[in-house]
Amino acid sequence: MSRAAEHPIDPPSAQALAEAVRAAMYARDYCAQQLGITITAIAPGYACATMVVRRDMLNGFAIIHGGIVTTLADTAFAYACNSSNEMTVASGIATEFLAPAHEGDQLTAECHRVAEAGRTGVYDVRVTNQHGKLIAVMRGKTYRRKGHPVID
Amino acid sequence: MSRAAEHPIDPPSAQALAEAVRAAMYARDYCAQQLGITITAIAPGYACATMVVRRDMLNGFAIIHGGIVTTLADTAFAYACNSSNEMTVASGIATEFLAPAHEGDQLTAECHRVAEAGRTGVYDVRVTNQHGKLIAVMRGKTYRRKGHPVID
Amino acid sequence: MSRAAEHPIDPPSAQALAEAVRAAMYARDYCAQQLGITITAIAPGYACATMVVRRDMLNGFAIIHGGIVTTLADTAFAYACNSSNEMTVASGIATEFLAPAHEGDQLTAECHRVAEAGRTGVYDVRVTNQHGKLIAVMRGKTYRRKGHPVID
Amino acid sequence: MSRAAEHPIDPPSAQALAEAVRAAMYARDYCAQQLGITITAIAPGYACATMVVRRDMLNGFAIIHGGIVTTLADTAFAYACNSSNEMTVASGIATEFLAPAHEGDQLTAECHRVAEAGRTGVYDVRVTNQHGKLIAVMRGKTYRRKGHPVID
Repeated sequence: MSRAAEHPIDPPSAQALAEAVRAAMYARDYCAQQLGITITAIAPGYACATMVVRRDMLNGFAIIHGGIVTTLADTAFAYACNSSNEMTVASGIATEFLAPAHEGDQLTAECHRVAEAGRTGVYDVRVTNQHGKLIAVMRGKTYRRKGHPVID
Repeated sequence: MSRAAEHPIDPPSAQALAEAVRAAMYARDYCAQQLGITITAIAPGYACATMVVRRDMLNGFAIIHGGIVTTLADTAFAYACNSSNEMTVASGIATEFLAPAHEGDQLTAECHRVAEAGRTGVYDVRVTNQHGKLIAVMRGKTYRRKGHPVID
Repeated sequence: MSRAAEHPIDPPSAQALAEAVRAAMYARDYCAQQLGITITAIAPGYACATMVVRRDMLNGFAIIHGGIVTTLADTAFAYACNSSNEMTVASGIATEFLAPAHEGDQLTAECHRVAEAGRTGVYDVRVTNQHGKLIAVMRGKTYRRKGHPVID
Repeated sequence: MSRAAEHPIDPPSAQALAEAVRAAMYARDYCAQQLGITITAIAPGYACATMVVRRDMLNGFAIIHGGIVTTLADTAFAYACNSSNEMTVASGIATEFLAPAHEGDQLTAECHRVAEAGRTGVYDVRVTNQHGKLIAVMRGKTYRRKGHPVID
């Protein structure tokens, strides 16, 4: 009898699974890579993403484009809502802009799960700068596809 | 006496002003330039922006990152809401995602003003692909800074 | 052979079905009844609701409570999104307030379907007063329960 | 010389002011009164409102009308955002519905300030039932009128 049969491999812990999903998603996440976004923390229902504001992220008023702040927040959201390895897509997002960010600022987006109800869910994201100042808040709504794992 | 003195030059029309604002904003809009966004039409309270989906706009599921769809929509919104040459910032945006877009798709975002009330306003954006399919809708809320023209 | 077998009853038209759903929903819609809301028009993907602002709808500033404007808009939304006789619930709504309404004003909320994608959808509502002035806009997101008709 | 003249009355504390604003607003808040909403707690930037679901709050599916959940949340929001005695109106609200509520349920809406930036602000509300279950979340956006106190 094989050792594997005697001591079957434990199912991965929720934390290990979240880390494996992050790795698989990030390898193909060309958008996050292009923007220099890194996923600095992951846990079930939680993710943290960070990015430095570059010149090519500025709008016509020399501040970060609202869409790029949203992209950072949406990235944290995507990793948080897929962290349990059930493919989950955003049905909608809403960002409130609270303060501008400038070239060179380091922005951090933290996302946590607020609620899941059936196949839909709600997640909140806070985006802060290097001084801890709140730059934006984003609320994301999800739709979970049943029976579609992110990784096998 | 010259005809010009008799008939002083008309103040720029609202349409000419919108076009001048677009030119001034775009020259410094490094984000739109980097994403290959062009502002194909502008009018008072209206703008149209277009972009081809590139590989570096894709998320970990091989579809366009929701934040980048939002950035295209937010760009149309920024030009529409500043088209009357009063500096206007987004206080918030909300995007609903209706269909995915893939590498090579040509997306068009059309924005029009819904209402202005005092110093705040509401704008709607529709994002469609090259087949006319609706990809997303975005609603933007503005806050207008009194006495701050975009261009002199 | 019976006449019914020879000439089977036609399935109800989409319009007749929408009207039947409205009647069945309204009979139990104690909230709409209490607020004096009437559904003045219905069609597949469309509904119109109207209401007169009463004193008991005012907030502490002598204008209509934003929640009640939203309730009127949400009512038009509920009838529009159930008009095809598939039970549909709101997953979220967002209202932008554009102008106040006062006691005695007659408000009208018109809702139309923007898009349906799988089991989710987006609907837009415009609320105007008796002078045609835009009071608020609301965007609603739906989730459709498969295989649950509103009426048999 | 009187003691009062020597030691003039302290300006009211922020907490006392919030309580005075609540009393003045509630006296004219016919909508909250009609719905049986009470403001059970108030503090600067915070309010808590509660209500029992009545039959005349139900929609055609025998659950509470989404607009009425929103009205409860919006009421907590109104008291929270005016608690510093500067007249503040809602520019927009967005509610996500997470679970239904039924006749007889006791709902509680807690609102706290997320951020203020210039004359605009963001507030979050959580609505729970008597078992602590999350029924809805609402996010409100404010616009503050400078120099307009709620009470003298």
